[in-house]
This record gives sequence, C-alpha cells and structure tokens, in this order.
Amino acid sequence: MSDYRAPTREFEFLLGEVFGASDHYASLEGCEKLTPELLDSVLMGARDFAEGVAAPLYRSGDQQGCRYEDGNVLTPDGFADAFRQYGEDGWQGLTIAAEEGGQGLPPSLGFMVTEMIGAANWAWSMYSGLAMAPVNCLISAGTPEQKAQYLPKILDGSWGGTMCLTEAHCGSDVGLIRTRATREDDGTYVLTGSKIFVSGGEQDMTENIIHSVLARVEGDPAGTKGLSLFIVPKMLVNEAGEITGPNAVSCGSIEHKMGLKGSATCVINFDGATGVLIGEECRGLEVMFEMMNTARLGTALQGLAMGELARQYALDYAQEREQMRSLTGPKNPDGEADPILVHPDVRRMILTQNAFVEGSRAFAFWLGQLIDLGRFGPEAGRQQASDLLEFLTPIAKAFVTETGQEVANLGLQVFGGHGYVADNGIEQVVRDGRISTVYEGTTGIQALDLIGRKVLANGGSLLKQVTALIRAFCAESASASDEIGAYCDELLRLCDEWEGLAATITDRAIKNLDELGSSSVDFLMYSGYIVLAYLWARMALAVESGSDASNAAYSAKKLATARFYFARLLPRTSAHAAAALAGAETLMSIPHDDFAI
Amino acid sequence: MSDYRAPTREFEFLLGEVFGASDHYASLEGCEKLTPELLDSVLMGARDFAEGVAAPLYRSGDQQGCRYEDGNVLTPDGFADAFRQYGEDGWQGLTIAAEEGGQGLPPSLGFMVTEMIGAANWAWSMYSGLAMAPVNCLISAGTPEQKAQYLPKILDGSWGGTMCLTEAHCGSDVGLIRTRATREDDGTYVLTGSKIFVSGGEQDMTENIIHSVLARVEGDPAGTKGLSLFIVPKMLVNEAGEITGPNAVSCGSIEHKMGLKGSATCVINFDGATGVLIGEECRGLEVMFEMMNTARLGTALQGLAMGELARQYALDYAQEREQMRSLTGPKNPDGEADPILVHPDVRRMILTQNAFVEGSRAFAFWLGQLIDLGRFGPEAGRQQASDLLEFLTPIAKAFVTETGQEVANLGLQVFGGHGYVADNGIEQVVRDGRISTVYEGTTGIQALDLIGRKVLANGGSLLKQVTALIRAFCAESASASDEIGAYCDELLRLCDEWEGLAATITDRAIKNLDELGSSSVDFLMYSGYIVLAYLWARMALAVESGSDASNAAYSAKKLATARFYFARLLPRTSAHAAAALAGAETLMSIPHDDFAI
Repeated sequence: MSDYRAPTREFEFLLGEVFGASDHYASLEGCEKLTPELLDSVLMGARDFAEGVAAPLYRSGDQQGCRYEDGNVLTPDGFADAFRQYGEDGWQGLTIAAEEGGQGLPPSLGFMVTEMIGAANWAWSMYSGLAMAPVNCLISAGTPEQKAQYLPKILDGSWGGTMCLTEAHCGSDVGLIRTRATREDDGTYVLTGSKIFVSGGEQDMTENIIHSVLARVEGDPAGTKGLSLFIVPKMLVNEAGEITGPNAVSCGSIEHKMGLKGSATCVINFDGATGVLIGEECRGLEVMFEMMNTARLGTALQGLAMGELARQYALDYAQEREQMRSLTGPKNPDGEADPILVHPDVRRMILTQNAFVEGSRAFAFWLGQLIDLGRFGPEAGRQQASDLLEFLTPIAKAFVTETGQEVANLGLQVFGGHGYVADNGIEQVVRDGRISTVYEGTTGIQALDLIGRKVLANGGSLLKQVTALIRAFCAESASASDEIGAYCDELLRLCDEWEGLAATITDRAIKNLDELGSSSVDFLMYSGYIVLAYLWARMALAVESGSDASNAAYSAKKLATARFYFARLLPRTSAHAAAALAGAETLMSIPHDDFAI
Repeated sequence: MSDYRAPTREFEFLLGEVFGASDHYASLEGCEKLTPELLDSVLMGARDFAEGVAAPLYRSGDQQGCRYEDGNVLTPDGFADAFRQYGEDGWQGLTIAAEEGGQGLPPSLGFMVTEMIGAANWAWSMYSGLAMAPVNCLISAGTPEQKAQYLPKILDGSWGGTMCLTEAHCGSDVGLIRTRATREDDGTYVLTGSKIFVSGGEQDMTENIIHSVLARVEGDPAGTKGLSLFIVPKMLVNEAGEITGPNAVSCGSIEHKMGLKGSATCVINFDGATGVLIGEECRGLEVMFEMMNTARLGTALQGLAMGELARQYALDYAQEREQMRSLTGPKNPDGEADPILVHPDVRRMILTQNAFVEGSRAFAFWLGQLIDLGRFGPEAGRQQASDLLEFLTPIAKAFVTETGQEVANLGLQVFGGHGYVADNGIEQVVRDGRISTVYEGTTGIQALDLIGRKVLANGGSLLKQVTALIRAFCAESASASDEIGAYCDELLRLCDEWEGLAATITDRAIKNLDELGSSSVDFLMYSGYIVLAYLWARMALAVESGSDASNAAYSAKKLATARFYFARLLPRTSAHAAAALAGAETLMSIPHDDFAI
C-alpha cells in the first residue's frame, strides 16, 4: 500500500495556468511579502509535513483510536508529537493576520495546506483545525485583553481548542440549546450544561484546551436570538496568559464512531465552569455563523482531501493489479493477465474520481481566491467576491462532500474484495469521509441555505451574478476551439435552465414553503454539477491556451478528463432537474403516522 | 434503538395482491403440500427466528467480531447456539428436495426467509448461507455415495460449509487459479494451495466444515477450462459419514474487515489435503457457475435486507427525533420542535429508501417465482422463466446492491451526527452492506455479463423477451386509470429507448469490444431502473384493483411511493443513457502510463 503523495503538479497547474496566482496575490493588500519563492516554500513545507509527519500516523491512528480513561482521553501514538511540531513550525497561525500573531498569509494558501495535511490524515488534522475555532471567535469579537490572554498559546500549538454547539437533543436546531450562563460580579460567567460531539474536547496533547461555547444567559430569550458565545478554558488562565488551575470542565465520555477514530469526539460537561463572554450578549450566533462558514469550507476541503487519497490508492492498485485480459487483446503479454486499468469500466471509475477531485480542487481554489479578494482585494471587487462566496459556500460544502463519498466508494470498488480489508487503507477513507456530508450542517441544511437564503431571499440576484460570470466566460471563450465552444453551448443552456428552475421553485414556494425543502437537495446537486462544468471549461481553456509543449501528456489528460466530465457526469443534471421539479406533493401526501404501516 | 421487525405486511401484499401466490404455488409440480397455512407458518417461524434469535446478536456480533488464535477462529457469543438451533429447526434444508433430505419447499419461499434472517443479522447468516455451497455442488453433480456421506450432517446443521475460489492473485479472473490436485490410486485427490476470502472457512460452531474447492488437476490445461471441483472436508469422513480424523486443512489467518465482523473471512491452506472430485474433471466451473448464480441472487437479497434494516432505523428515528419546525407551521405544537419527518427533505430520503426497498423486494419475489417456474412450473413455461431469470440475475445482483448502499447511506444521513455513532446501529448497516457490490462478482462483472452474454451474445433476444412482457403489461393495464396509463406511457417509451441503447452498443462493439465495458455499468443501472418501474406499475395496479377498503392508508402509501418513484428516481435513466452512449473514446484515449501524471 502506497502512502499519500501531495499533488503538487496539480497545484502548479491551477496556480499558474488557471487562476493566475501571481497577479492574484500581487493584487491583495498586505500580502506583498508572498513572493513566488515564499509561496513555493510554504507549499513544499506543507507537503513535507503531510507526507512525512501526518501520513505515517494515518493507519495507526485508526487502529489505535482514542481511549477514554477516568475523564482522560489518550490519543494515538505520535499524535501529540505531530501537533507540537505543527505549532512550532508555525502552521497554526499561517493565515492569521500578523497583528494577531500569525503569519499573515492569504486564506487561499491555507486551503492548499489544509488539503494536503487533511488528505494525509484528516483525523489528526481535526485537532489543529478545531484549535482555530476559539482563534476565529477571538479575532472576530474578542477584546485586546482576551486576545492577549489566549491567542499566543493557541497559535504556537501549546493549547488546543474546540467548538461546543451540539447538545444531545439539538444539532441542526441550535435554538434549543440548554447550556446556561450566569453573570458574576467580576464580569465573568458561570456555565452549566453538557455538550456532545465536541471534537478534540479532551486529549493528552496540550496542557490546555480553549472551548468556544454557545450558551444562554439566564433571563435571555429562548431560541437562537438568546444565544451568547463564551470562551471557557479547560485550565483557568490569568491575565498574563498563565495557567492558574483547573476549571469545572470535564469529559464524560467519547463516542465510538464509524471512522475518524483518531479524533476524540467528546461529551464535555460544564459544571459551573468559569467563562468569558465574547462580543455582546445574545449576539453569539452571529460570531458562530462566521466561524461555521469557515468550517463549512473546511469540510468541503475534507471531501476533496479524502477524494484525492482515494484516487491515489485506486490508481496505484489499478496500475499494479493484474486480472483478466483486455477485450481488445493482451496489453501485458508477458504477464499472466493485464493490469486492470486496461478495462474500460475501471477507467470509468478512475476518471470519475479524477473529474470530481480535480474539479473540486479548482472549486476550492476559486473559493480561496474569493475569500482573499473579499478581504484583501481591490475595494471595488470586494462585495462581488463576498457575494459569490456566500452563494457558493453551501454548494461547495454539500456537493464536494457528496461527490467525495462517491469517489471514496469508487476507490474501494476498484480494489474489489481487497478494498474491504482494513490493511489496504481504502475502506478507512470511506469510513473517515462518511461524516463529511453530516457535520457542519448536513447536505439537507446546506441545500435549504442555498435555495432559501441564497436564492429565494434575494430574488435570485446572487444566482444571476454567477450565471453572468459563466455567460461572460462563454462570450469570451467559446470561439477558442470547437471543444470549448461545445462546452460553452452546454453551459449557456444550463444557465438558462438553472435560472428557470430557481424561478419555478421560488414561485411555488410563495404558495407553499414545503416546495423549498422538496427541491432543495436536487437543486443543490444540480448547481454543483454546473459549477464544476464551468471550472472544467476554464481548465480546458487554460490547457488549450498554454504554450508549454513539454506538458503534452499532462495537457492531453486534462482535456480528456474535461471531455469525460461533460459527456458522462454533467448529464446527471437532467435527473436532478426532474426531481427538483417533481413538487412537494410527491413527498407530503402521506400522513405522518401512515409511514410506519 | 429499535430492533429489526420482519415486514410481514409487505410479504402479504406481494404474495396475495401482486404475485398471485396461491395460483403460483398450486401450479408447481411437487409443491402441493405448500398450503396457505404451511406458507404462513414457515414465514412466521422465520420471522420469530429473525427477530428473536438472529437480531439480538447483530450489534454484539459486530462489537466482538471474530478472533483468530493459533489456527482456531472464535466466533462471537451466541453464534454457535443460533446455528445449532437453525439446523435443528430444519431451516438449512428448507428448499432442498425431499429426496435429498430437505423439506422440498419452493425456492421463492427461501428468498423470504433469507431476507428476514439476513436483515436481522447478515454476518451470522453467512455461515448458514455458505453451508449451502457444498450442498448445491453435491446435488448438482455428486454421486449418491458422496451425497449420503455429506448431505445429512450439513442439512441438520451439524456441519458447516464453504466455497473456496479466490486466491491472493486472482478474484474475478478464476482461470489463474494455482491450487492443484493430484489423483491418488484410490480415486481421491490430494490438494495443495491457498485460498483467501473464504467465508466461514474456520469457526468454532460445527464439528466439521465441508469445503467446495476449485483447483486444477496436474496436467490439466491452463485457464478456466482446466478447473475441477472438489469436496475437501476439514475433518475426514468415512463412507458412513462418520468423522475419522483431521484433514490437512488449516486456517492461516482471518481478515480485518470494514464490516461483517462476525463472519470469519479466512485464509485456508490445503497442505496435501484429501478431497473428492465432484462431477467430471475440468468441468468444475460449470457446477460452480450454477452455484454462483444462486450466490448472486443471495447477494441481491443482502442489498434488499440491509436496505430494509436501514429504512426501519431511519423511519423510527425520523418519527421520534424532534428538530426545527415545519416551514408550513408547527405540527407538534406541544413539543419544543417537530419530528424531523415533517421536513420534505427527510421525507425525500425515507421515500427513496421505501421506493428502492419495496421495489427490490418485488424484484426478489419475481425472481423467486421465476426460479420456481423454471424448475417446477408447467413444462411449457419453463424455458421462458429460465430465460428471464438469466437476463435479470446480473441486474438484480448489481442494481439491488448499488441502490441498497444508497438506501443504507441515506439511513445514516437521516440520523445526522448520531448516525456516525456505533451505538445507533445504522453505521454498521453501511459497513456490513459495503461488500455487497463487490463479492460474488463486482458490479462491473455483472454489467459485463449483462451486456456481453445476455444482450450481445444472443442479438438482444433475451432483452426482447423482457420488453415484450412489459409491453404486454402496458397493453393490458394502461386503461386501468390515468395514473397507470401515465406509467405505461413512460414504460413504453423506455422499452423503445432500452432496445435502441442495446442496439447502438452492440453495433459499436462489433468494431471495438471496449464499447461493451465502456457502457456496461450505466446500461445495467439504466436497466435496473426500468425493471423497478415495471414492478412499481404492477404494484400500483394491484393496489388500484384491490377491493379491500380497510387498507385505505396502506394503499394510499403504496400509490404515493409509486408516484414518487416515477417522478423522482426513474428520471435517472436519462443520465445513465447519456453516459452509456458516451462511447469508449471518452475512457480509452489516455495512455496507461499517463494516468499517474
């Protein structure tokens, strides 16, 4: 079984040939220091960490899993050392502003780093990922004193962090949160309640863990509008940022899960724990939502990362495993059989993986650049970048994770019976990745966000921004070649259909709000296929426009994958469109109690 | 978490209202004793075994798994007792002819029993399922002496059995088998070689295990045409069927797998083991193929069984879990939130499960009746029944398991984060079921069988038998109601398109055999959606024609599910048709070595 190898050639292609990275980074305010050399050295450093530190702990982390003993959580061997090194090497603060103690590099760069280290070992990477939750809360709404107290130790990897939202009776429905906070005379709060599904809620890697906690101050209103955000450290910290003693925070148990066994999923009990309010009372969800958007994009990156790992496993196996002869005659006459990559259906599976993974990576690059532009880009373009990001985020989260699971399962399928055996690693990708369509908002929640908030609520204006962009691309590029022209024809047809779908659903929803949920997931998947088609057309154009003849094989493979995508995957839009238009009646006519008959 | 409940109401509906069971069973030769009372008592007995004996070992079997210690395999607690009871109660020989020592009941009845016991605990049921492998080999090609020696003890549950095909270097490509056999002077053979993926190859439940083994007699030709079939017992048996001592058969290790952890998957070493030839030399694959067809249908039943379990879990959860309000106003005003079944997208998931599971069960009933008719039906109809069965078998195996995995994953999705936690049972369904599209011939192998052997090889005549049947149904039923009429219109359109697809692929394959594999899986899935549409139309017609007004709610739910299927799932045929027609060039243009760039 081969180990993960960072797909640096893919990064070079996207940065250099598709997304014009030099111009992009040069346009960002405050990112002047990101020279091509620095960019390269950051990527190579992340590659080395991913391949050399995180990947070797992938299988063993799953085999050992986490153990719970008397309130303590023991993480797999090597996890603590890797976490320490990650912090010491400065990765934790990579994209945090310099004035907050970070390295001040653009978010898009963080996406590439997250992909590589996450593909190498997503379970491990969750500890560093979740440590950013309190960091983002503090940066977004903390006081200078609060920041000084907590940020440095998290950013240097000395302390971990979490996001405590879910309770046993409420996940998607955060308004039902029961954890309560009482204001003390000294301005601190006392928190009481129990949170579940807290990733990294307890571990043996850091001396302190900084929890960001949603809770309700006694007397504040019910529902989401009464929620406030608190920082609650496992160990109490004085103003100088030194640990003074334990807080009333404990880990009640850890979950036995399908996958991500190296990542501790904890029940965290707050028994009169001391916390500090971040921002204003009753404004907790606003801060949390900002963080959740980041987490949603991070989860999209999980879909991409695990897809990349799955396709590496599958391709290696398909090139090595010899089984049966090609129907068009032996391709490996000296062997007993041909490598299975000669069989068209194995190629269909591998190309499906490639088309989704490479398309999703282009999607991630696009999103990364939009974040860069929304924050640091030329003033005139910031709003548009933020608008696009807002529209695309739920699509990215749900579509990339749903297709990521298809990619992972195809990977297992390529292995045949050997894919079901743990030693070969691929079944772990399927198990680890299965949560990605669930946490940080299920596919259903993302889909409601898209059709409700991002389409219906603004009368389709955000959608029109996206279709305008695609139409502009087509107007500019359709004449580049017959192939690009054909892609553009299809994209233009789909843009019309897309807007028509949105208009029909909107019209129906005015009479019956159930029309939203009844079309939402199919509308989202439909949208995702169009976004990827647009990106594949852009990649194909970039290849055709490229002048580097030494890359002939690479270019030919990219163009073939684009063709594959348009011919074999994009037609799924027709099935999703039909389902999205089927109407609420096809779902709602059965009375609740009759389902159980 | 609720336990499995056998869906007896569904069986009644299919037996009584859709598939005319009384007439069917009355038409079978030698099955006269199957009165409605006996049928009912067999089904109730299987239900009791499934719910009372097999289901309670479902979670614990996964948690404990199998352990390997010094050549012995320890199965989970309770597995041995359940196996003993199963044999003692006469289930093992249920559909075996009376003259061979069985109960002589029709195969279709066995399908229902397999579904129930398999849904309750597939891992456990593999031990009894695989014990039928040597039974079927012996019945199909064994001598009376061989049968007398082995059958009684297997059929009463005293001994287990296996199927030993796969070797480390060959799975789908059985022609590469290296296990060899040498003829001895006494007519027995000495076998040497190593088999992998042998389910139940070693266990602590029975005093003997009868292996059916594919091997090559020294001097026989290479490839599949040189393979012979042997019975090789773990413990040697004299002519009276008594154990005389150990054979040179040992278990080298067991696999650590994604799921089905209660089922031991063994490496079995034959180190000069004594075996007897079954049938003639070099004719092993013929016998084995017959058995493999049975195994393929058994695996289709796994897809159905695990889908049923997944939908039970998901529906229970969706009716109990309260989260958020219906967008059309509170449905559970006294609670904090509404049960999630009020949300259209949750209904979409549950109805997708129902449409696939109930459609697949109808598919299984149809196949069961075709086996009955092919063996025991009126002479005039036997060939047609066998033809239909031959065509439908690869579709059933691949389509029901592929959609079964969609059903299982939707079940997990309904649970949200709680679905990822082992205690809730649903993630086990996903893990256990994941192998079903792989073993007994992957989806890719089934698809090649369909397009190659079942379409191309006979110039589409088998396909025409199926479309003729569907067209006849439409001619007869289209006028029953507007709804049935609309379904028939769509079925007729699809029959034309189906034949057109087959003709196009056949034409192209004459020039390039890679066109087969390049269209095969999409053609198979496309075919499966049509078969299920036909069965949903039949079910809808049965409901409309039914006179039992007391079943109004049940009938309404069935009709709504049929509508759902036609409106929301059947449109997927368009995407599969487009992909099937995309051509081999979209897959084959990339040179083998360039994939790794």
